Amino acid sequence: MLKIIPLGGLGEIGLNMMVVEYADTMIIIDAGLMFPEDYMLGVDYVIPDMGYILQNKSRLKAILITHAHEDHIGALPYLFKEINVPVYGTPFALGIITSKFEEHRLTGASAFLHTIHPGDQLEIGPFVFKFIRVNHSVVDGVGIAMYTPEGLIVHTGDFKISNTTIEGMKTDEGAFIQCGDEGVLLLLSDSTNVEREGRTPSDEHVSNTLKQLIHSSPGRVIVALFASNVSRIQQIVNIIKDGKRKIIINGRSIELSVRIAKELGLLKIPNEIEIGINEIDDYPDEEILIMTTGSQGEPMSALARMSTGMHKQIKARDNDTVILSSKFIPGNEKAIAKIINNLFRKGVNVIYEKISDIHVSGHAFKEELIMMMEMTRPKYFIPIHGEYRHLYHHARLAEAAGIGKENVMLLENGDIIEFSGGEATLPGKVGTSRVLVDGKGIGDVGRSVLKERRILSEEGLVVINIIIDEETGFIIFGPEIVSKGFVFETETGHILEDAKCIILEIIEDVVDMPHRAELLRKRLPGALREYFNFTIKRRPVILPFILEL
Amino acid sequence: MLKIIPLGGLGEIGLNMMVVEYADTMIIIDAGLMFPEDYMLGVDYVIPDMGYILQNKSRLKAILITHAHEDHIGALPYLFKEINVPVYGTPFALGIITSKFEEHRLTGASAFLHTIHPGDQLEIGPFVFKFIRVNHSVVDGVGIAMYTPEGLIVHTGDFKISNTTIEGMKTDEGAFIQCGDEGVLLLLSDSTNVEREGRTPSDEHVSNTLKQLIHSSPGRVIVALFASNVSRIQQIVNIIKDGKRKIIINGRSIELSVRIAKELGLLKIPNEIEIGINEIDDYPDEEILIMTTGSQGEPMSALARMSTGMHKQIKARDNDTVILSSKFIPGNEKAIAKIINNLFRKGVNVIYEKISDIHVSGHAFKEELIMMMEMTRPKYFIPIHGEYRHLYHHARLAEAAGIGKENVMLLENGDIIEFSGGEATLPGKVGTSRVLVDGKGIGDVGRSVLKERRILSEEGLVVINIIIDEETGFIIFGPEIVSKGFVFETETGHILEDAKCIILEIIEDVVDMPHRAELLRKRLPGALREYFNFTIKRRPVILPFILEL
Repeated sequence: MLKIIPLGGLGEIGLNMMVVEYADTMIIIDAGLMFPEDYMLGVDYVIPDMGYILQNKSRLKAILITHAHEDHIGALPYLFKEINVPVYGTPFALGIITSKFEEHRLTGASAFLHTIHPGDQLEIGPFVFKFIRVNHSVVDGVGIAMYTPEGLIVHTGDFKISNTTIEGMKTDEGAFIQCGDEGVLLLLSDSTNVEREGRTPSDEHVSNTLKQLIHSSPGRVIVALFASNVSRIQQIVNIIKDGKRKIIINGRSIELSVRIAKELGLLKIPNEIEIGINEIDDYPDEEILIMTTGSQGEPMSALARMSTGMHKQIKARDNDTVILSSKFIPGNEKAIAKIINNLFRKGVNVIYEKISDIHVSGHAFKEELIMMMEMTRPKYFIPIHGEYRHLYHHARLAEAAGIGKENVMLLENGDIIEFSGGEATLPGKVGTSRVLVDGKGIGDVGRSVLKERRILSEEGLVVINIIIDEETGFIIFGPEIVSKGFVFETETGHILEDAKCIILEIIEDVVDMPHRAELLRKRLPGALREYFNFTIKRRPVILPFILEL
Repeated sequence: MLKIIPLGGLGEIGLNMMVVEYADTMIIIDAGLMFPEDYMLGVDYVIPDMGYILQNKSRLKAILITHAHEDHIGALPYLFKEINVPVYGTPFALGIITSKFEEHRLTGASAFLHTIHPGDQLEIGPFVFKFIRVNHSVVDGVGIAMYTPEGLIVHTGDFKISNTTIEGMKTDEGAFIQCGDEGVLLLLSDSTNVEREGRTPSDEHVSNTLKQLIHSSPGRVIVALFASNVSRIQQIVNIIKDGKRKIIINGRSIELSVRIAKELGLLKIPNEIEIGINEIDDYPDEEILIMTTGSQGEPMSALARMSTGMHKQIKARDNDTVILSSKFIPGNEKAIAKIINNLFRKGVNVIYEKISDIHVSGHAFKEELIMMMEMTRPKYFIPIHGEYRHLYHHARLAEAAGIGKENVMLLENGDIIEFSGGEATLPGKVGTSRVLVDGKGIGDVGRSVLKERRILSEEGLVVINIIIDEETGFIIFGPEIVSKGFVFETETGHILEDAKCIILEIIEDVVDMPHRAELLRKRLPGALREYFNFTIKRRPVILPFILEL
């Protein structure tokens, strides 16, 4: 019996991870992370719950990676902290994974990495996997054709079917059509851009706009983009290589990405046009082009530091042109806008997606999604890689494209789908969840800790210390009040002084009662909460320490 | 000498407030708030610093209100806590302001409200103000023509120049053209949508889409929109008034807005089609249309509660259609998407801006902005109402439209512009800032409190209590450790146990030294920070209470 179980990515953009198993062979496609949502205070990353994998680790034979984006590889180091297992991916993906393993100090983990190329066939247990080139916003991405005892399953990876001028990176439509000819049992397809009509614009269009902008800029040009968008980097290199400008690559992640892509021959930058950051002053402004990161408004990125004057070598100034060649990812708009506004204030001309066509998405639009269905002609269809609304619209699109309503499966994380005799059933669910990573703590920050952090963050904290003589009930020490994040003590310190009077009154009330410390612990927080709410309408966390000695 | 000083709104969307003064007459246009940015933890609202106004309050003669949106009226109650001054506005704006004053228990404040209508002339000191109807996403908006001793100044308010089918709400182009004919010294114009090409689509287009959607919905229809978007409410009423559906208005702010608009004759809902929420079960699903709030994903809104089943009378279910007839405001996308995903999971058909034309902005696009310049033909131009990037682009647009570069003034909050003999100068700045409102505290939450809240929210807190015998140095009590938002104690409690050992070791080290309490207060936080950073890579706030008795 063939089983497919999505552990992440069906119900969110991120956390992509899918189990495919048959008898005693289990493989995983991708192991991605997600960046924390707003309410996940202090959380660094989110990874999928790997409980199901660890329970079945004796059957786990391999992990197949479709491409090098964080939402497809970011959870790998966390999985490798538990188990080592062969990982198959294209050279660029493995290059990025290697540097990730090094960062996590997973010595020896890289020995488990195995290179595959588009067209390669890989046999594991009852499965044969064939990798198919797809075009995406990261270089060297693949989809996977999985020949299983129950039939052929096609996983698109993240893809678009747009024309591209970048050599060797075009989606291999022929291979998908061939799958269709052989007969596809199930298509698993990227849903990210199902809400967008038509087709993704061509790279050529973006190239032309960029070319015009770069050539007409009077001074330095600074292009900010995703570090892994090697095709875009190549486009820009191609634009400037016959002109006067020299190129500087600046920013930790883009330097890594460029180094790996160059080593693998995936990126070609003529030696004579690339210069180091320290040579920047050897050339006039109009001969400089800087490629950097920070297009999402990350506050510590090179671009953010350039915009505030905190970058050591590059300070944005009058006559500079900054091009943000990437999308505004929802949730990041305000941070991006802040950088744009700062740059304009410094006299920089800023070009961004809203005012110019300088970016094109890496995910197929509606018509390309239909093309994928038409090429592969699957019996069953499962939309993957999207929030529920994307999966919903993709499922409706598949029905409209002629796939039978009963064969379109709108799954969520944890749903098990089984295939037997060419028919699908949904026998149940495995447990899944989002595991929060905070520092070295994996999964210990849960609902209660987040709730405490939320209250602390919105209302602050008041600590009270009192020591009472056990015999006499006299106050030996205190009441001492310390607050954090509650009020600014030089402005509203009188509120804390008044709170002391309230505490003293309550102590007086209970001093002759039995269990007075216990009583105080109970009564003080309520009384203070009421007082603070009345005077300043805030409800801080109140921590009373009451001791009898 | 005529002075104009923007106190807010030039450099942000929000906080709109502008001073216009001549000799001993000062008036203010609008007094708006802003919703807090992400880093302003626990803050309820942001208002402009009114220091300049309060210092000059003897000269303040009136406040003119352009329309009823929060970013134009939200700071009025805070100003009225300091001074009472006549406020002039259209009936709907004053209706909303009255309810605001009541909420803030500003008894007597409403006596200062004076109604004006488009076409009215108002004389205050050396000024004559003439109000001009503008079309915007709130009903009953106006721009202001200000006849000053130095010349005519036109303030557009928030406007668009699109055709509308809503009676009496069309922008009065004739009045602006007449200003142009009389000669305009200065145009102050709304910059919000300067990045958008062309013209705003017509209300008619939105009406047609809505009509088709409502008529083809098989069950209940729930429309979520901005409470103050009375024109949109009227459009929907017009769509259903000849059909079978009854209308239910649900949600605190929309009920208020509808009540005021109906009282003023600005909204006409035939009695026989409006029913109360308690009658919802008396009609079949296909005869129900609910208008509600929550289109921005507000977690406590009626729509959010419908989507999670927490709404008392209305639970979203299979066969319902939900229409979000408003824009996704940047920063709110994730919250909106969460509600959309939840609704789809419940089988609801959700229609939103990305997939259908069911909303049109209330702010002029590029071509309309040019039309405004062409109608008024000003000598000077100041872009208002926008982030810096909007002001920047609007200034460039004005130059392209033929206003002399030296007469286009890119001001920021606090900049003073003076007019004398028809010429402008920029003599300096007044102090401005953003004042944070948290509960009843106005301005006491500043940088240091926000920083404490941020650290508490990301890393949590550890409190340590130790009492030492002053004579012997023996520990009388503790070390007691209490944490909040740091680790989940049943999972990682051993970390706190180990921390106790570290504390005990340090106490042992210092027990024989002079000033041991002082030493402990100094050494413990560092040692614990290092330990926590090493074991779990978190850096909580550490509060040590060390007492010698």
